[in-house]
Amino acid sequence: MTTEAAALRAVQGTAARPPGELTDTLAGLMCEGGADAVPDVARECARHALLDWACVALAGMREPAVRIVARLHDPQWEPSVGLVPFTGPSAPWAVLVNGTAGHALDYDDVNSRMHGHPSVPVVPTALAASALRGCSGRQLLDAVVLGHEAEALVGEQFGGAHYANGFHATGTIGTFGAAAAAAHVLGLTDAQARHALGLAATQAAGLKCMFGTMAKPLHAGKAAMNGLWAARLAQQGFTAAADGIEGAQGFAATQCTGLREAPVVSERWAVQDTLYKYHAACYLTHSAIEALRALLARTRLAPEDVERLDVHVPPGHDSVCNIAAPATGLQVKFSLRHLMAMVAHGHDTADLDAYTDALACDADLVRWRERVQVRFEHLPSAKGARVELHARGGAVHAHYADVGVPREDLPAQWRALVAKGRAVTRGVLAPGRFDALVRCIETLERQPDLLSLHEAITT
Amino acid sequence: MTTEAAALRAVQGTAARPPGELTDTLAGLMCEGGADAVPDVARECARHALLDWACVALAGMREPAVRIVARLHDPQWEPSVGLVPFTGPSAPWAVLVNGTAGHALDYDDVNSRMHGHPSVPVVPTALAASALRGCSGRQLLDAVVLGHEAEALVGEQFGGAHYANGFHATGTIGTFGAAAAAAHVLGLTDAQARHALGLAATQAAGLKCMFGTMAKPLHAGKAAMNGLWAARLAQQGFTAAADGIEGAQGFAATQCTGLREAPVVSERWAVQDTLYKYHAACYLTHSAIEALRALLARTRLAPEDVERLDVHVPPGHDSVCNIAAPATGLQVKFSLRHLMAMVAHGHDTADLDAYTDALACDADLVRWRERVQVRFEHLPSAKGARVELHARGGAVHAHYADVGVPREDLPAQWRALVAKGRAVTRGVLAPGRFDALVRCIETLERQPDLLSLHEAITT
Repeated sequence: MTTEAAALRAVQGTAARPPGELTDTLAGLMCEGGADAVPDVARECARHALLDWACVALAGMREPAVRIVARLHDPQWEPSVGLVPFTGPSAPWAVLVNGTAGHALDYDDVNSRMHGHPSVPVVPTALAASALRGCSGRQLLDAVVLGHEAEALVGEQFGGAHYANGFHATGTIGTFGAAAAAAHVLGLTDAQARHALGLAATQAAGLKCMFGTMAKPLHAGKAAMNGLWAARLAQQGFTAAADGIEGAQGFAATQCTGLREAPVVSERWAVQDTLYKYHAACYLTHSAIEALRALLARTRLAPEDVERLDVHVPPGHDSVCNIAAPATGLQVKFSLRHLMAMVAHGHDTADLDAYTDALACDADLVRWRERVQVRFEHLPSAKGARVELHARGGAVHAHYADVGVPREDLPAQWRALVAKGRAVTRGVLAPGRFDALVRCIETLERQPDLLSLHEAITT
Repeated sequence: MTTEAAALRAVQGTAARPPGELTDTLAGLMCEGGADAVPDVARECARHALLDWACVALAGMREPAVRIVARLHDPQWEPSVGLVPFTGPSAPWAVLVNGTAGHALDYDDVNSRMHGHPSVPVVPTALAASALRGCSGRQLLDAVVLGHEAEALVGEQFGGAHYANGFHATGTIGTFGAAAAAAHVLGLTDAQARHALGLAATQAAGLKCMFGTMAKPLHAGKAAMNGLWAARLAQQGFTAAADGIEGAQGFAATQCTGLREAPVVSERWAVQDTLYKYHAACYLTHSAIEALRALLARTRLAPEDVERLDVHVPPGHDSVCNIAAPATGLQVKFSLRHLMAMVAHGHDTADLDAYTDALACDADLVRWRERVQVRFEHLPSAKGARVELHARGGAVHAHYADVGVPREDLPAQWRALVAKGRAVTRGVLAPGRFDALVRCIETLERQPDLLSLHEAITT
C-alpha cells in the first residue's frame, strides 16, 4: 500500500466498511481535519479539475440555457466576459448560473466511480463558499478533492443501480459532493456536516430522461446550489435526519432500489481517477481519436498515404456514435468516420467552433471518410478503441487507446488541459487573460486568498 | 352529474383517462383557458385556502427554521410583522422563506387526494408570480384552484405508493402544484406548460424520513421555489423532456415504484376536498376534539359533571397520539387524554401558545384526564373518533366526528377559519390588521390587482 493509500485509509477506515458507515465517513471528510490526509498528488489533480471546469464554464456562458437561467434573476443580464461574480449583488445566484454553464456544453470532466460529472457541482460551490468565508488556495484545492471523494463514495456504493434506474448522478450524487466541498470551506463541525448530508439527501434531484434538453445542465447548477444551501443551513443550526442517506426510506432506499453494491474503498483518491474530455465530440469517439492521433504521430503519414482505416469499437457504440454520413455539425460529433477524417486532415477536434454544418459537407473529408470502416468487437474496456491503419504500399499500423484510464503523466495532462482551455475560451477570454488564469491556478497553493482567482474567472 | 362536475369533465376529459394522458390534462389546466370551467364554489374554497395559508404562514415566520432560511440570503434578517415581500429586493427568496413559513408549524391544510399539504407549495408561488405579471383577485383564486387540482391529479394517480415508499408528497407532488399555479398566473402556452411540467418532475424532491426536523418545512419552501422556477424558465424558452412525468425513467417510474394506482377523476374540484386543521395538535386527535366539543355544546355539562369519557379511535392512533401522561407542551399535542381535559375545561386548542409545559402540569387537567379512557376499534374512517360521555347520574351521550370529511357548510368553514386565523396571528398582527386582511380576501374577486393583498400580508 502506498503512503497516500495509507493516509486515505486513515480517514476512510478499511475496505470492510459496512453500509451504515457511509454517513460517518462522509462527515469525517467534510469537517475539520477531513483534508489532513490529502496528499499533494490529489491537490495537483484538483488543480487540473479546477482549470478544466473554469474554461468549460467560461465557454458555456453563451449557451441559451445559461442565458435563460441568468435572466431568471436579472432580466437585463447579458453574457459578458467571465462568469457571474460569486461576490456582490449577483452572489445568490452565481452558483446556479455558473454551475449550469459548466455543464451546458457537456465538455466537462467525468468520474466512473461517481457515475457522473464530478467537478461541475463541486467547484462553483466551493468558490461560492470561499466568497462567504476566507479561504486559501490550498483549502480550495482540498475542497475540490473532498467533493470528488464524497461523490465517488456515494456513487460507488449506490450509483450503479441509481443511474440505471433513471437518475442523473451529476444532479443527485453531485449534491453530496457540493455539500462536502462547501462544508469544508465553511468549516462545519461533525454534527453540522451530518445535518448538511441530510439536507443534501432530501434535496437531491435530476432525471436522466431529461438528457438532450436544457434541463440536463440545470441539474448541475441545482446540485451546486442545493449543496451550498445544505452546508450553509446546517452551519446556522438547521436540522435534518441523521440517517438521510442510508436510513429507512432515506436517499438510498428510495432512489437506489435494485442492486445495492457493496462498498469498495479505492486506494486512490477519487480526483485521481477523474477523466477529461479533450474533444468536443461524443465521449465514446475519444479513444478512436486518440488512437489515430498516436498512429499519425508515430508514422507521420499524410491523409493521402492512408488506403484504409479500420476502427474497432465495442458493439454498444453503434447506436451512439456511428452516423455514417453526417449532414450537420452536431451529427459530426456522433460520427466516428467523419471524426477520423478530421483527425487525418489535422482539424482541431477540441475546438467547439469546429463542428459546423460546412465541416460536415467538406468535400475532402466526405471523400476520405469512405476509407473508414467501423467494426464492432468486445474490447478490454467499454471505452476503448483499436485503430488499424492500412498504408498505401501494404504496411499496417495498429494502436489501442482507452480514454477510460486516467493519465498517469500529470504534467502531460496539465499541458493537454491548458491546450484545451485555450481552445474553448478563444473568443471568450482575451489571450493574455487566459494565460493569467493558468498562472493563477498554477500558483494557487501559494495564495493566501482567492481574490486573484475570482478576478481571473469573473472579469 | 352537477353542472360543476360537467364543467370539470369538459376540462379534464372522462374518468377513463389512460395514464399517459396525465401530462396532457395538467398542461390543459395550466395554460390559457384552463380556468374557464372553474366554478364559483371552487373559488370560494380557494379563498378559504388563501386565508388559512396566510395566517398560518404569518404565525410561522417566527419559527427558528424560517429565520435560518431567511438569513441564508440576508444575514441581517429579523422577523418583523408580515411575510417577506414578494416584490422589491427580497423577491427572489420570498417564495422560499414564505413557503417554509407556511409549513413550519405543521398547521396548514391537507388534501387526501394529494397525500399532502396542498396550499403551502401553491399559494406563495402564485403570489410570487403575481408580482411578476399583473394578476386580478379572481385569477389568483383560479391559480389556487388549479394548483390544488394538479396536486390531486398527480397524487391520486401516483401518490399512494409514492408516499408509502418514503417521499414527502408536499415537497414532491407539491412542485407540480406550484408549477401549475405559477403557469396560470404567468400565462404560459400549452407547449411552455409541458416544459414546466418536465422541469417540475426533474426538480421534485423531499424525503419523509426528514419528519421531525426543520427539513420538513423546507420541502414546502423548495417545492414552491422549484415550481416557480419551472414555470418561469419554461416561459423563457427553457426546454425539458415532454414525458418527464409518465415516460420511461420519468418521475413516476423512478419515484412511484410499487402499486401504480389507476387514475380516478373526481367529480369535485380538489380544492373542495381540502381539509383544515383547527387545533394546534396532531391531526389524528382532531375528530375526538370535535366530538367532545359537540357533546359539551349539546349537553352544556361542566367538567365536574363528567364521570367518565371513553374515546374510541382507530388502532393506528395508539402509536401516534396516545401519550397517557404528557410532561411537555409538545407531548400534549400527541395526548388524546390531556386534550380531552383541555376541551372540557374550555382551553383554546387552536391557540399555538396554549401548549406550554405548564399546561402539561396543570393540576386540574392532570386530575381530570384520569377520567378519560382511550379505546381502539375500527371505525368507518381512518381519521374518525367516537366519544362517549358518561355523566354523573348515569346519562350517556355519544358523538362521532370525522375530520376527514370536507365541510359542506362553507360559510361555517369560513367563520371557523377566521377564528383560527385570529388566534394564530395574535401577537403577530395587530387586531385591526387582521380584520383588514380578512376583508381583503373576502372581496378579492372585485380587485383588479393584488396590491392590497400583498400589502396586507407583508407589512
